[in-house]
Amino acid sequence: MTTSTYDPATFRPLTFHDAVPAFRDGTDTPRAYLERCLETIAAREPVVKAWVTLNEAGARAAADEATARYKAGRALSSIDGMPVGIKDLLQTKDMPTEQGTPLFKGVQTRTDSASVLALRQAGAIILGKAVTTELGMSHPGPTTNPFNPDHTPGGSSSGSAAAVGACMVPATLGTQVVGSVIRPAGFCANTAIKPTFGAIHRGERLAFSQSHIGVHAGCLTDMWNVLWEMGRRSGGDPGHPGLYGEATLRAPLKPARLIVMESEGWPLMEPRVGDAFAQVLTQLERAGVTILRRSDSKLIEHFESTISQSLAICRDVCGYELRWTLENLVERFPTGLSDSMMSRLTLARSMSLDDYRKVLLLRQQARDAFAAIAGLADGLISVSSVGPAPPMDNSAKDSGITHTTGLPNFNAPTSVLGSPTITLPLLAISGLPVGVQVIGQMHSDATLAALAGWVRKTVTPVVA
Amino acid sequence: MTTSTYDPATFRPLTFHDAVPAFRDGTDTPRAYLERCLETIAAREPVVKAWVTLNEAGARAAADEATARYKAGRALSSIDGMPVGIKDLLQTKDMPTEQGTPLFKGVQTRTDSASVLALRQAGAIILGKAVTTELGMSHPGPTTNPFNPDHTPGGSSSGSAAAVGACMVPATLGTQVVGSVIRPAGFCANTAIKPTFGAIHRGERLAFSQSHIGVHAGCLTDMWNVLWEMGRRSGGDPGHPGLYGEATLRAPLKPARLIVMESEGWPLMEPRVGDAFAQVLTQLERAGVTILRRSDSKLIEHFESTISQSLAICRDVCGYELRWTLENLVERFPTGLSDSMMSRLTLARSMSLDDYRKVLLLRQQARDAFAAIAGLADGLISVSSVGPAPPMDNSAKDSGITHTTGLPNFNAPTSVLGSPTITLPLLAISGLPVGVQVIGQMHSDATLAALAGWVRKTVTPVVA
Repeated sequence: MTTSTYDPATFRPLTFHDAVPAFRDGTDTPRAYLERCLETIAAREPVVKAWVTLNEAGARAAADEATARYKAGRALSSIDGMPVGIKDLLQTKDMPTEQGTPLFKGVQTRTDSASVLALRQAGAIILGKAVTTELGMSHPGPTTNPFNPDHTPGGSSSGSAAAVGACMVPATLGTQVVGSVIRPAGFCANTAIKPTFGAIHRGERLAFSQSHIGVHAGCLTDMWNVLWEMGRRSGGDPGHPGLYGEATLRAPLKPARLIVMESEGWPLMEPRVGDAFAQVLTQLERAGVTILRRSDSKLIEHFESTISQSLAICRDVCGYELRWTLENLVERFPTGLSDSMMSRLTLARSMSLDDYRKVLLLRQQARDAFAAIAGLADGLISVSSVGPAPPMDNSAKDSGITHTTGLPNFNAPTSVLGSPTITLPLLAISGLPVGVQVIGQMHSDATLAALAGWVRKTVTPVVA
Repeated sequence: MTTSTYDPATFRPLTFHDAVPAFRDGTDTPRAYLERCLETIAAREPVVKAWVTLNEAGARAAADEATARYKAGRALSSIDGMPVGIKDLLQTKDMPTEQGTPLFKGVQTRTDSASVLALRQAGAIILGKAVTTELGMSHPGPTTNPFNPDHTPGGSSSGSAAAVGACMVPATLGTQVVGSVIRPAGFCANTAIKPTFGAIHRGERLAFSQSHIGVHAGCLTDMWNVLWEMGRRSGGDPGHPGLYGEATLRAPLKPARLIVMESEGWPLMEPRVGDAFAQVLTQLERAGVTILRRSDSKLIEHFESTISQSLAICRDVCGYELRWTLENLVERFPTGLSDSMMSRLTLARSMSLDDYRKVLLLRQQARDAFAAIAGLADGLISVSSVGPAPPMDNSAKDSGITHTTGLPNFNAPTSVLGSPTITLPLLAISGLPVGVQVIGQMHSDATLAALAGWVRKTVTPVVA
């Protein structure tokens, strides 16, 4: 048993934006920054296991190009020279895309996913592919929590969250269908955003009607810069208006009112997490924010009732939408899928088109109820998980990985709603991080980042 | 110069539904039906050039399986044993998917597109891949018009339309982004549907916000059966409710009122086509249908004004959405794309996210204006092209194919609107077919097919 080491008072995440002035004046370079990242990776990767593939040679070449651009005064963007990791669900032209399954071992597409292409165009360095669970669903990979290797990093963006938590890189891309960005980000003390549905082009991964590309980072500025530089270059999903906002993170913005989102996670929340979250709310109230709860408004109560089945909505929506993919896979590889994946296929086969229509309707009703509370407050606030990262099942670790990556009950609502949410590392429970998320209405990503900035600087992280 | 041969009084399209009773009583078999198709292909393919790939061995094996199912009284669906062609943009696990460009020569995915998988599950025989223009856009392939090889079959579903027009197979899949199902179907005397946007799962081809999978067939019954069997098995696009209707084509339904859709094609319509279409309208009026025109209603006039820039909307929407795909391709194959494709990339690079948002707004305004005329009539009616299939540029044929596949001005509106449309072979101009299309509101596909059935049996095709 390793002792958990997370202390929000002393933990210093790796950031990038504050290194840029030194790139400009020549006292530091993107190449040197990259080498420091590679040193951290060399030191921590044997335990953290965040990466499937690293392209060190390609990254060094790209870093040298970025170094030359800064020297010439021609940096391409605010993230020129930033080493980033890409969740291994997203295609990269220079590294395999294995999607967390041995079925795709070594599969090399020759295409950059839209977001990856955008990052390259902005000068970011595509350093490696980060571990994902099997096809981005439940079955975990080998990654461990950077603050305690006996605990999960969460999933499915396991490597993306752990690499940022271990200060290996300043930012990574993750994806979220149910809870795959915000939960692992919270478990690994990331600052991370799951943006508005459709705001960032999902490239080849459009087969789910509620998936998102998210950004894991060490701070809000880096998070926003990565998001913005992708959004302006790749646009949103086809038919969507894309990310609204500006190139620079908005100044911290104090909310007048925040609504506590309970969701179906509330009764499952570990008591120490509940107590610590209550202290966060107390700090906010003392700073002059009005906190609204479901008992304060029939509209909030109605909203809570529509999201009370979010996990079931996610299961059925995604189950049905996975059918085509899984039918193809199971024919190619009759014994290649995990039991949990096969149970998804069984569910999908049992659903009729009318079953799917009905769950789409439930989802739309939740969205309507969410839109109806827009005028009541500036945003919503909740925890990012029911507790800190659970321990992995050590008894089973040798024979195959069977541990859970944690419960997504606090994440399913924003996946159903499509609304933007940002997790901040505001809680430490038994030496492990737990996130607090701030949630906004559709297309409010830029304002939400400003609200999150205010919450981040106003709240002293709570240790319990 | 070959003489054009289309005569609607004598042309007998190949149909399938009427062969099924003989499969059931054992006087015919799917295998024998397939062999007849292969004979026609052997006779006509050297001139028509509809196919990129044929999988004769696989088709014969599948036909034998279908034959056995009928013998056992266990046919899987109304299209069990139907030989079908698949536009070569859609992935098939057993044949390459070359997308009309030498860049993808021989590229073999191991996946069936969602619609292809659905057809296989229904027992249909995936006989071959039909020629498409380059990446489904403008630059044509080698296919010729089955009624006159000096003329284009239309595009981009060139092979799909020509194979049905040449009676090689009873049905094929096409795709439409601007005018790629309805226009070539009209040029080749097909009965074809571009269904409601999202009604048929596009599988791996979700990168356009206004593309559709359509069905080319010899008659309405086969068209509907193929559409329905796909829709109930593959569902619609992620997040869409899919195809509404029943397993059997609805009985012919007489419309009380039809609105003439002029669109920006109207001033370009060839006079003989305009005259022949007027005779169709006269026949409908004599049968008791009220024909409404833009001058009859301010709402219709407003609708026409919102679709008057449909081609420009298509160009900008699709241009922007093609960026990611084309940027990847042009990096891999710097000189591999046609001039017309490179000009699309140039356009895409010139567009900002705000440009895209603005054109999405124009598209939405057209959709709103279309919805606002729903109560005025049972549907809309128009021609499917400004004229018959234009001649190919013979002077350039030897040095490379540079001819046009025809103008999509009468097709862009329904691509913009996402509304279902069915083309019927009701006109013959100089021995070449021209289609008349009947257009419905969103999700009215089944009713629209019934209206089209009534129009088909009521109107005597007009020869001019």
